Amino acid sequence: MAGAEIEALIRQLSRLPGLGPRSARRIALALIKRRDSLLDPLARALTAAAEAVKVCKVCGNFDSQSPCTICTDAKRDRATICVVEDVADIWALERTAAYRGLYHVTGGLLSPLDGVGPGDLRIDDLTRRVREGGVKEAILALSATVEGQTTAHYIADRLKDTGITVSGLAHGVPVGGQLDCLDDGTISAALKARRAV
Amino acid sequence: MAGAEIEALIRQLSRLPGLGPRSARRIALALIKRRDSLLDPLARALTAAAEAVKVCKVCGNFDSQSPCTICTDAKRDRATICVVEDVADIWALERTAAYRGLYHVTGGLLSPLDGVGPGDLRIDDLTRRVREGGVKEAILALSATVEGQTTAHYIADRLKDTGITVSGLAHGVPVGGQLDCLDDGTISAALKARRAV
Repeated sequence: MAGAEIEALIRQLSRLPGLGPRSARRIALALIKRRDSLLDPLARALTAAAEAVKVCKVCGNFDSQSPCTICTDAKRDRATICVVEDVADIWALERTAAYRGLYHVTGGLLSPLDGVGPGDLRIDDLTRRVREGGVKEAILALSATVEGQTTAHYIADRLKDTGITVSGLAHGVPVGGQLDCLDDGTISAALKARRAV
Repeated sequence: MAGAEIEALIRQLSRLPGLGPRSARRIALALIKRRDSLLDPLARALTAAAEAVKVCKVCGNFDSQSPCTICTDAKRDRATICVVEDVADIWALERTAAYRGLYHVTGGLLSPLDGVGPGDLRIDDLTRRVREGGVKEAILALSATVEGQTTAHYIADRLKDTGITVSGLAHGVPVGGQLDCLDDGTISAALKARRAV
């Protein structure tokens, strides 16, 4: 219909998460129309990212250097490691600017049904980091799902004999959340963990 | 936060139509994670499109050749030209497979308030195409907005002395549309253009 190159571009765009054929067509058209201001910079950014971005060998973060900027930042608290499932979680935590420790990306959650066992996650690397010394606390910031909590229990078990503090994120009412929109589990958790005002 | 190259990629992605910072971050992460299967093919598709795609000098369509595949297709009805605002409209019409004539892209609509006059659109090219002969009908498939209808009237006026038939798309109830969800203008138009069953 519109030339093989345009069709190929639409096909590649529609494979991106959250984009369907309709939005892919819209984006392809915008890219072709604004070649200098939109298409060329995106192509350059993609090539640059493909060349520069590597996985941090310490924590599993994506960065242009390995060990990554966070792992090599002298100003960060090296005694605390926050264990997350994915690099997206590091980005979310960094946006809050509420955490100044290090990270460790597991690369997934334990899921026996999907065939994901401890050997598929970077948990051995985590215990090695803790055993190398200097770490006082591991914060398990994993999803509040069955898989997330199973993984958290497994990691806590693996870290038990190291003697460090292992903590998890608090459950409760999200800031800005309304009670009648919340599920029963969250309300129960928030009630149980109630605090003096 | 995540390396200059990743930040640059997120920035470029969030400039695409329909993508905000959140979806841009999600897409950037998916691209970096699946470099071979997602990032590299997209980068290649972008480069290929940038190199190959040109504007058809006859109708204004995007294609890897000029005149485009549609203009050079011997099987198409060369006596009918469908006048559209944008290449996206060609794609929409081609998907229906209900039209087998040629196209002409105006590149926009007349809009005195935005400073878009007849000289900014490819209307002279259209009248030249019609005067070259062989065209029997021009279908004005422009938006049913004030600008679209103004542009349609202007084009009809410009084509008046060529003697060809100038038609517009029918207004009426969309297929699958419910009466009580439609605006008054559409219902009036559908009533006025009622047909024997």
